[in-house]
Amino acid sequence: MPKYVVHYFNGKGLGEPIRLLLAYGGEEFEDHRVAGKDWPEYKKNTVFGQMPNVDIDGKKYAQSIAICRYLGNKYGLAGDTPEEALEIDQLVDLLVDFRLKAATVTYEKDEKLKEQRYEEYSKDVFPEHLDRFNDIIEKNNGHYALGKLTWADFVFAGFFDSMKFIVRIPDLEKKYPAFQRVIDHVYSIPKVKAYADALGPTEF
Amino acid sequence: MPKYVVHYFNGKGLGEPIRLLLAYGGEEFEDHRVAGKDWPEYKKNTVFGQMPNVDIDGKKYAQSIAICRYLGNKYGLAGDTPEEALEIDQLVDLLVDFRLKAATVTYEKDEKLKEQRYEEYSKDVFPEHLDRFNDIIEKNNGHYALGKLTWADFVFAGFFDSMKFIVRIPDLEKKYPAFQRVIDHVYSIPKVKAYADALGPTEF
Repeated sequence: MPKYVVHYFNGKGLGEPIRLLLAYGGEEFEDHRVAGKDWPEYKKNTVFGQMPNVDIDGKKYAQSIAICRYLGNKYGLAGDTPEEALEIDQLVDLLVDFRLKAATVTYEKDEKLKEQRYEEYSKDVFPEHLDRFNDIIEKNNGHYALGKLTWADFVFAGFFDSMKFIVRIPDLEKKYPAFQRVIDHVYSIPKVKAYADALGPTEF
Repeated sequence: MPKYVVHYFNGKGLGEPIRLLLAYGGEEFEDHRVAGKDWPEYKKNTVFGQMPNVDIDGKKYAQSIAICRYLGNKYGLAGDTPEEALEIDQLVDLLVDFRLKAATVTYEKDEKLKEQRYEEYSKDVFPEHLDRFNDIIEKNNGHYALGKLTWADFVFAGFFDSMKFIVRIPDLEKKYPAFQRVIDHVYSIPKVKAYADALGPTEF
């Protein structure tokens, strides 16, 4: 049995930051991808009825960010002092705020309201957040926190495709070149590159 | 200058878990409460345009949960192993999920839609989360994580008035007696009780 099993949909979303961190750590992990049609049944096996879940030494854990922090600590990517760890956490939580605020648009079932909200958010919520992320990265030497490689970079890079999907800007990294710097910092790490290169097509 | 300054509105909300933890830690902290009318101006002084913020040794930090984790680590309330810390984090993030999902109702500006969403959420999102929190606490000996006092209890207890406000159940602790056990575990600690007893009336 492998030490780590990642359970997530066949996509990047909230699973990819975990997979990227495990690749960085040089871990052999089982990449269990649950097909959409199997989700209602598989849901019962998860900790809180959500994914990703990760088995660590046979015990199942939930919540993407919590798992990324755990791995970040394990691989020395969580800052050198408690105050540095706090800086990473506050910046990651800002990304979470963005994702959960945006989710009210992305997952809105009323199509008309969804488009109306998308228009509204495109005027303030989205640009305000994107500009702030850009400032943060520019101040941090092309990283998302502390001016150096931390697990926050893996969260940002792994989540980036979802961010583009949310704001509906396919070339978001052209509009905000700083974003590309974070992605490059992560994907240029040989072990991470090897994982990404070997990855087959995903559903989204 | 005090070592800690907590900047938040004159209410519990996301500030109280921090204040409770500082009281537990026996810290002298300045409890800076920003009146609603002063917020638009004060906003410019905050890290991300949000509160709470906390000054630690003269540096300002943001994000309630990140700050609570930092204090939890400082006071020995963050578990004994990395895996225990992960369990706390995953449970706290479940509370965050609930809060941010509920925010789409609480902060909905369209009154008609707000009431419609409240009705919908009252049928599934709210009871599902509340039942899950109840199960977690019952399995954890009246605590929110690890079967013992952790910083997650302070988050739960400090946030509880907001939870009642969100679900509009003023006697929520009567419906879920397990919730009261967490609150009692926190507020029966002498230093926390002293802080709470000394607290004047708040705006909300």
